[in-house]
Amino acid sequence: MPGSRRVYAECPAHGLRVPFREILLHPSANEPNLAVYDASGPYTDAAASIDIKAGLARPREAWVRARRDVEDYAGRAVKPEDNGYVSPASLVTPFPVRHRPLRAKAGRAVTQMAYARAGIITPEMEYVAIRENGLRERMGALIRDGEDFGASIPDIVTPEFVRDEVARGRAVIPANINHGELEPMAIGRNFLVKINANIGNSAVTSSVADEVDKMVWAIRWGADTVMDLSTGRNIHNIRDWIVRNSPVPIGTVPIYQALEKVGGIAEDLTWEVFRDTLIEQAEQGVDYFTIHAGVRLAHVPLTANRVTGIVSRGGSIMAKWCLAHHRESFLYERFEDICAIMREYDVTFSLGDGLRPGSIADANDAAQFAELETLGELTRIAWQHDCQVIIEGPGHVPMHKIKANMDKQLAICGEAPFYTLGPLTTDIAPGYDHITSGIGAAMIGWFGTAMLCYVTPKEHLGLPNRDDVKTGVITYKIAAHAADLAKGHPLARAWDDALSRARFEFRWQDQFNLALDPETATAFHDETLPKEAHKVAHFCSMCGPKFCSMKISQEISADMREAARQADIARQAEIAQQQGMDQMAERFRAGGGQIYRAAE
Amino acid sequence: MPGSRRVYAECPAHGLRVPFREILLHPSANEPNLAVYDASGPYTDAAASIDIKAGLARPREAWVRARRDVEDYAGRAVKPEDNGYVSPASLVTPFPVRHRPLRAKAGRAVTQMAYARAGIITPEMEYVAIRENGLRERMGALIRDGEDFGASIPDIVTPEFVRDEVARGRAVIPANINHGELEPMAIGRNFLVKINANIGNSAVTSSVADEVDKMVWAIRWGADTVMDLSTGRNIHNIRDWIVRNSPVPIGTVPIYQALEKVGGIAEDLTWEVFRDTLIEQAEQGVDYFTIHAGVRLAHVPLTANRVTGIVSRGGSIMAKWCLAHHRESFLYERFEDICAIMREYDVTFSLGDGLRPGSIADANDAAQFAELETLGELTRIAWQHDCQVIIEGPGHVPMHKIKANMDKQLAICGEAPFYTLGPLTTDIAPGYDHITSGIGAAMIGWFGTAMLCYVTPKEHLGLPNRDDVKTGVITYKIAAHAADLAKGHPLARAWDDALSRARFEFRWQDQFNLALDPETATAFHDETLPKEAHKVAHFCSMCGPKFCSMKISQEISADMREAARQADIARQAEIAQQQGMDQMAERFRAGGGQIYRAAE
Repeated sequence: MPGSRRVYAECPAHGLRVPFREILLHPSANEPNLAVYDASGPYTDAAASIDIKAGLARPREAWVRARRDVEDYAGRAVKPEDNGYVSPASLVTPFPVRHRPLRAKAGRAVTQMAYARAGIITPEMEYVAIRENGLRERMGALIRDGEDFGASIPDIVTPEFVRDEVARGRAVIPANINHGELEPMAIGRNFLVKINANIGNSAVTSSVADEVDKMVWAIRWGADTVMDLSTGRNIHNIRDWIVRNSPVPIGTVPIYQALEKVGGIAEDLTWEVFRDTLIEQAEQGVDYFTIHAGVRLAHVPLTANRVTGIVSRGGSIMAKWCLAHHRESFLYERFEDICAIMREYDVTFSLGDGLRPGSIADANDAAQFAELETLGELTRIAWQHDCQVIIEGPGHVPMHKIKANMDKQLAICGEAPFYTLGPLTTDIAPGYDHITSGIGAAMIGWFGTAMLCYVTPKEHLGLPNRDDVKTGVITYKIAAHAADLAKGHPLARAWDDALSRARFEFRWQDQFNLALDPETATAFHDETLPKEAHKVAHFCSMCGPKFCSMKISQEISADMREAARQADIARQAEIAQQQGMDQMAERFRAGGGQIYRAAE
Repeated sequence: MPGSRRVYAECPAHGLRVPFREILLHPSANEPNLAVYDASGPYTDAAASIDIKAGLARPREAWVRARRDVEDYAGRAVKPEDNGYVSPASLVTPFPVRHRPLRAKAGRAVTQMAYARAGIITPEMEYVAIRENGLRERMGALIRDGEDFGASIPDIVTPEFVRDEVARGRAVIPANINHGELEPMAIGRNFLVKINANIGNSAVTSSVADEVDKMVWAIRWGADTVMDLSTGRNIHNIRDWIVRNSPVPIGTVPIYQALEKVGGIAEDLTWEVFRDTLIEQAEQGVDYFTIHAGVRLAHVPLTANRVTGIVSRGGSIMAKWCLAHHRESFLYERFEDICAIMREYDVTFSLGDGLRPGSIADANDAAQFAELETLGELTRIAWQHDCQVIIEGPGHVPMHKIKANMDKQLAICGEAPFYTLGPLTTDIAPGYDHITSGIGAAMIGWFGTAMLCYVTPKEHLGLPNRDDVKTGVITYKIAAHAADLAKGHPLARAWDDALSRARFEFRWQDQFNLALDPETATAFHDETLPKEAHKVAHFCSMCGPKFCSMKISQEISADMREAARQADIARQAEIAQQQGMDQMAERFRAGGGQIYRAAE
């Protein structure tokens, strides 16, 4: 990032190096540089050498092995169906390095929740505690001013606080023991609001290079986790490339690959195929799985009168399966078997909302809330198995129905982290659904959602390209930060205030560097005022020099400001009306007609 | 607009033709075309001939003259300072046609409020009543489902309802008697939420052709009013070109031109210069004036500890004037003299928020609310003079502080329409402030704001170009519509539902045409699936054919759907567990494995 440098908070005792992005301010700012947490990985570290064929370094493997509750093993052999029976000519090159997979020793749960409940503070918990604190020892007093609707955001995040949140299921650290490249990320209502970016090829378009590039690109702009939603061929191999190069948690929807394995025929899905797919992906190191176990046979008829039926891919697949067999969903019936796999690798459940509304008309309907009740039931079961759980949420919801989603989710799912897609607050703007949904995302984030799944401008229309990914990520960083601000997160205000001070003091370069997207801010400014001199100008092209309110504000001298404050002369003058006014005015004019002190 | 045609609701008795945009649906939709109100003027009427040198037709002049309470007169001669003493070589050509200005006969108030209070329903009121009803006689039953926080939105807008709202000051129809080209627009909490687009040259850049083009462009995409914020030279002449070609209300900030007239020296402003400017612009036909009469001398010290001081241009000018002279603002002291001018032409007050917060840090502070109290006091005075009033609002406000703004404004200003700039919900995203502010705009619109002033991506960075204007307008149409939906406006849901039905039934062309921006929606779709055949395909490039949830949903046959609904067999099956299940499943398979009926 222009105007930023990578710094690390070191914790040698635990072998941790937690990256931050330090935004460099001009010396005239007379304040410390601003540090923000940085999930972009080694890609933005000038000192790091990157070789995507080797993958990232795997410092976390040592943390996992040090716990002595895992074993490596041969692992599952890659099968032709894993890559969709792709022809040898079209096969994506397998990732060049193969790490023997790890799994829990028999009977052990190797989840962060299990450790947390046992009172153990893991390096992963230490790591996220440092990350969540944002180098605050450098910052001055922090302003907490917000409405958090009953959240419990601490002033300082201690490792013990993280442990407690994970133990009670109020936060997760998606961290598959086979994702040695991972820089752990906390997701929970009492931490900074996180965002997810979806990538993935489809049967219609995209390649492996595109997808790895999109992952790196998404985290560069601020994605905290990435979901690989690939559905075409080669998905096993593409996934390997992504996980081995990803410092952020990777999520998938295993039912997509399972469906590929049975030739796209939903009715042909079986528990055995699905189970095999879970193990395949768990061995690869996927950190969280979307599992649509809440779509029960009895729920499907509730969607019959909907305007847009079932819009979740996983949900529609399972609905079709249930009806075709007239049986309860095997995901529901086998849920405890799934838990047994999840705890063996510490894959976090992302309980999918297969019946989420796909239109304003269908928001908050019986189908949606019936599924949510089931997700609550499944959460309790997963927790019994020490599995970490997040709950997926809608979708399309008008503003007045958003809060009910949050309130119900908290009550029904025991405060397990909520993870929503938007929601979109209107259906009428395809091409701008990053915005229709950014509105809903900011609001539901404020109300307590822990992670916001981005929506790009291409939603409903096509597969996002690089520009769309960036726009989606920036929009969701805005929503997440607006939510943190409104919740009164102690770190949030400092960023806004630093930027606003830069703005008021015409430190243009600082303003650009502090922006979520310095490149765009700079380019927009330079479109009308391209010269370097204009980067120190006390005006911009919007108002020009004469009409700049900030310039006028600045012209108001410090003397007057001080005098006004101390003597409150303005009020006195008002009381005294015209009496003695000419004298006062004269004094002011003698001071140069300035009201505040000029910046420099 | 592609896929739309212009239609008119005729009211021959009053000589009214109210334009609508009829969005054409495919016959397979089996539902009526959707009509939406259309403020884009004759520019989008294929039958209209446009000559910007002649200006638009002036049907409204007859309505005004028919009231027999106005007189035409010679009008004020254009002075060199009106165009900023521009040299003859740089002078923008004066608008070729000069209409003799109208003013009220001595002692008469010619405002919509005066008529409303006298029990008179004007053609302007008839017009907006038709416009607000959106040809609803064509539509089926309308769904009202929202939270309106105490608004009084009627099922049908009658002219009498409009009259009553205007009489009590809860709505305005900005309609200068000299704006004969105007298609009247209602602004009030109980009408559809409106949006304003700002245009205008500055000392740094822009030309007259650009500005007229921007106005036409802004209304094409949905701006309901346009403010001309020009500050450079030629502003008198540019304004003439804009007003004579504008079907929507035009607003200005007269203090900008007054300041030009005194060479940009705030201290040199006088009541006489300002008064002369008001008359100059009132004669031109400007429909509403932003007047920063709420910035009182005593308020200025309240801004001393702010992070961003005073960010309103008008506010900073007046603050400087007050301090330089150590006198109460002449706008405040002369407020009744201003009212006397406003009522003579029916220029609506837009009481400016000169002390609005320019950063999250300054939101809802003492300066802001002190000014709001003054605006409430001035509202009551203006109403005593039968003047129409809207109240401007912030600015930069984090989400948790937005509702307090609305609640205070309603209480303090007697429900006069609120007109806010955003608010921006965070400061950290210059380059994306249409989004940071679109979030706040949607929320405050829901809470009761009547008109939302757009913010473009260039905010804080530069002057918006055509693309920025469009992006700003579309973003604010989203915010306004999301607000209407959440308020439960009876017209809002029909649009979302029509688009969602098109989406579910794979009527791609209908989906594009129903979008706020059909061009972008089409272009995004065609980026990955350009062929015409793909516009009838039952999938898109996001998921591909096999994974399209809507396709799967549609495959579920109508027979099953009906059976499921009637017998609730799914629930029965669940209760009966496996008993008789194979038979049920068989029956379903015999039906072709479909769950819903296929679309076509």
